[in-house]
Amino acid sequence: MNQVIQTILERRSWRSYEARQIQEEQLEQILQCGLWAPSAMNQQSWHFTVVQNQPMIRRLTEGCQKMMGVETDPFYGAPTLILVTGKEGNIAPVADCALAMENMFLAAASLGLGSCWINCVGRYLTTEEGRRFAQDAGIPQGYAGVGCMILGYPKGPAPQPKERAAGAVHFVR
Amino acid sequence: MNQVIQTILERRSWRSYEARQIQEEQLEQILQCGLWAPSAMNQQSWHFTVVQNQPMIRRLTEGCQKMMGVETDPFYGAPTLILVTGKEGNIAPVADCALAMENMFLAAASLGLGSCWINCVGRYLTTEEGRRFAQDAGIPQGYAGVGCMILGYPKGPAPQPKERAAGAVHFVR
Repeated sequence: MNQVIQTILERRSWRSYEARQIQEEQLEQILQCGLWAPSAMNQQSWHFTVVQNQPMIRRLTEGCQKMMGVETDPFYGAPTLILVTGKEGNIAPVADCALAMENMFLAAASLGLGSCWINCVGRYLTTEEGRRFAQDAGIPQGYAGVGCMILGYPKGPAPQPKERAAGAVHFVR
Repeated sequence: MNQVIQTILERRSWRSYEARQIQEEQLEQILQCGLWAPSAMNQQSWHFTVVQNQPMIRRLTEGCQKMMGVETDPFYGAPTLILVTGKEGNIAPVADCALAMENMFLAAASLGLGSCWINCVGRYLTTEEGRRFAQDAGIPQGYAGVGCMILGYPKGPAPQPKERAAGAVHFVR
């Protein structure tokens, strides 16, 4: 099994992180991997907003908590968030962004970092408060929230693999 | 640069294939990689229909050609198609399927195979004729077309990388 396939099969969604920040070079490589995803008609419908500013992470945390009515940390202490937004009106912004995110998840795993897709941010950005946050964070107009990637050094034991559903593949031969 | 990041940066969408079929072991590894993608709330919303039957590929080819009013081969001679359909009503079937497809694209690239996302199949499956095709191909009910992955030994010179759009990343620090 080559390193690519091994990384794909062993990547896990991490929900526990060290507080220390990742290295600039790691972040740069991960972002490049996102940018080199395929996209419908090469529209590259993604925009990545990298948030490492603690007050802004706190504001987003509190906004999502309030929206969901929970007190738990939706970002699990990760020191870096990559907010992924897709250009409205393009052919396939959700798919384009997801392709880019998988590249970034795998690049992170290959560098020994942990990551996870967090879904609440996309919904939060559609709220009035979330739209103000988007503006203050500099998310370009005309881009809608697709997902949020949390990123950092993983902490604690690796998550156990979750069973795969049966019957997800069939052959026409 | 590790092998994972290199594969991500060097993967290209191939539009020219040899006629010979890929190996069974390669196909199995690629499908496994698709199945191990992350998904919203672990719903694993994907179903993969692997089509290697030539009359069925021809039927799908002609259906897509008719729908689009073109005579070119939408599958570029690839001997294997993986039709990726997403479970309707789930949280994020399009994103789940795209994550799985990127895993499969990268696994294919790591094995020296070529692949490309072909978009017309998803639309075709929504037509009356396409729904009959889906039934005959055994695509489970309640799953909608998301994408089609063409797969095979690449032929000819590697596609040139397309320029990345500027300004797709910004930082909040």
